Amino acid sequence: MTRLGIVGAGQLGRMMALAAAPLGIRTVLLDPGAEACGRFFGEHLMAGFDDLDAMGQLAAAVDVATFEFENIPPASVACLAEHIPVWPPAGALATARDRWAEKSLFRELDIPLPPVARIDSQADLDAAVGDIGLPAVLKTRTLGYDGKGQAVLRSTEDVAGAWAGLGSVPCVLEGFVDFDDELSCIGVRSSAGELRFYDLVLNEHQAGILYRSTPQPHHPLQPAAEQYAGQVMDQLGYVGVMAFEFFRQGDQLLANEIAPRVHNSGHWTIEGARTSQFENHVRAVCGLPLGDTETRESVQMLNVYGGRPDVKRLLSVPGVSWHDYDKTPRPGRKIGHVTVQASEAAVLSRRVQQAESCLRNDRGQ
Amino acid sequence: MTRLGIVGAGQLGRMMALAAAPLGIRTVLLDPGAEACGRFFGEHLMAGFDDLDAMGQLAAAVDVATFEFENIPPASVACLAEHIPVWPPAGALATARDRWAEKSLFRELDIPLPPVARIDSQADLDAAVGDIGLPAVLKTRTLGYDGKGQAVLRSTEDVAGAWAGLGSVPCVLEGFVDFDDELSCIGVRSSAGELRFYDLVLNEHQAGILYRSTPQPHHPLQPAAEQYAGQVMDQLGYVGVMAFEFFRQGDQLLANEIAPRVHNSGHWTIEGARTSQFENHVRAVCGLPLGDTETRESVQMLNVYGGRPDVKRLLSVPGVSWHDYDKTPRPGRKIGHVTVQASEAAVLSRRVQQAESCLRNDRGQ
Repeated sequence: MTRLGIVGAGQLGRMMALAAAPLGIRTVLLDPGAEACGRFFGEHLMAGFDDLDAMGQLAAAVDVATFEFENIPPASVACLAEHIPVWPPAGALATARDRWAEKSLFRELDIPLPPVARIDSQADLDAAVGDIGLPAVLKTRTLGYDGKGQAVLRSTEDVAGAWAGLGSVPCVLEGFVDFDDELSCIGVRSSAGELRFYDLVLNEHQAGILYRSTPQPHHPLQPAAEQYAGQVMDQLGYVGVMAFEFFRQGDQLLANEIAPRVHNSGHWTIEGARTSQFENHVRAVCGLPLGDTETRESVQMLNVYGGRPDVKRLLSVPGVSWHDYDKTPRPGRKIGHVTVQASEAAVLSRRVQQAESCLRNDRGQ
Repeated sequence: MTRLGIVGAGQLGRMMALAAAPLGIRTVLLDPGAEACGRFFGEHLMAGFDDLDAMGQLAAAVDVATFEFENIPPASVACLAEHIPVWPPAGALATARDRWAEKSLFRELDIPLPPVARIDSQADLDAAVGDIGLPAVLKTRTLGYDGKGQAVLRSTEDVAGAWAGLGSVPCVLEGFVDFDDELSCIGVRSSAGELRFYDLVLNEHQAGILYRSTPQPHHPLQPAAEQYAGQVMDQLGYVGVMAFEFFRQGDQLLANEIAPRVHNSGHWTIEGARTSQFENHVRAVCGLPLGDTETRESVQMLNVYGGRPDVKRLLSVPGVSWHDYDKTPRPGRKIGHVTVQASEAAVLSRRVQQAESCLRNDRGQ
């Protein structure tokens, strides 16, 4: 029986462990949190993500390891990889962690992307603003997450001192994109190099964080998205699930970023596809063949922030599944998600409205 | 958050705990087995099913309790029920445990059933054989399971001493039924009395044990099965999932037996219905509304006995899901099941053939 190590025991680790169970794959989850919500569904190795001794222990306890997030210290990934296969590969984590490396990869593969420049000084910034224009967004190259480590530059005054404002660390400047919508492509690559993709997902944000994901069967940009995501995964020697986030401008996709892991915009696959992104990730990293990725019927996912919904009322709406991450609610904290299904779009939309009326989202500040 | 106690941590307890997780319901599983396969997905309370102290501990740790099997000592059920709600109710377990009580309930509700007689002595048996004729099956009233505690009586010689042969315990004599096939109806009743049913399931046995279950959408006997199962659940004040096994003779159903729990013939619902029998059982016993029971597409379930299949080959068949119970294989031991899905029946049948070629079933003796 394969044993799978998962670095991180938040909701993504939790859902991976739950997907591994029916395959008979036992999990060991490394996470510093005594209350980490994935701890119930595998052995919990309580240790910091920079604890190399613990990485050695994890490597000794499992056959293969994976991650629920990309910001693992490279030394920890290297320590694991000395002993056991680690998927996705260290190079993919490194690329996704570093916005400049990521954009450079897109360029190298001729994947269209918004204007971008590498910024290592205020002089770089001033020059880049001249090229790209304003408004633009200055972002730290690493450790950006949900709007942190970013500064929106709207006027010349915003530009002055902006690089120092983000700590004088390596940055990128990204041109503002006047996009029509945001789409993500969830793909999976097996250890044999086989590629499969779920339907493109339309993502809607509220206050900068993902609120709603709706798969879009037969989207005209599906082939382009698959081509770009496939190129990136092939280039990185990728194994596992990867999310590729795009901006859509008319009939063109512009690369935004990749996430080298299962992704919030793929949670609908638990009910909405024959094989969920979590099961396909586990299958891939454990060397098993991939499963079907077709969308089964009309489906939408809603994130739940801050407070638990009225679960009795929510579950009385037909077609609703509730995923409680078993986290202590607090304002702005993502504590679960809802999947709504229906056999046709009009019915789905009614059900989604009913489901939303049961949520008491508090997204915090 | 609700905490659910489950008595028994075999594969049924395991799949209940896995279904409870997304609902944010934590489980405590009571089972004497140090290796019980459900132990990974909840707190494991290692104790015997007759350990009343442990039942008290379980009751103190959870809000509501349920069972993965019906042969729990009544004193243990009573001990739990003194402190917390226990579903299905003790009366349902008692009825299902005792073949005579079960058949008497069917008669009381005018549900057709094969000829049957209560046997408390060899004289009762001799008289009943006169009424019912041979062949017939003598069964102990309690603790029968998968063909144990039974004697097939074909000739007058078989009848002599047959009652003593089963230990001179209370028995029933059942007339042989020349049936066309065996169907089961999986129903669920909520604490509010709402009833839902999955499609009737055609069950095929090999060497007396269940091998294949195939749901039968639009079966002409669906209304009759729902009526009988609903009557039984209403009469028992039932909460949770119940399986009702029938013999079909032409266009008539004859009651065989009820199982007051999630049932092997309902495992296909994990992928094949929007809400699995496990989730609906957990929803019901935790006082939540029931979920959709419609069959999503063509689906079939195969039990796996004795040895692990060639999992890589199995999972390369489209539409296949593998459920490994994480049990040490030995001849005759049920160690997992396979679900096969397809959008149409002809494709399903090809995929099932491919899947079966990957199984190395060893059903033992």
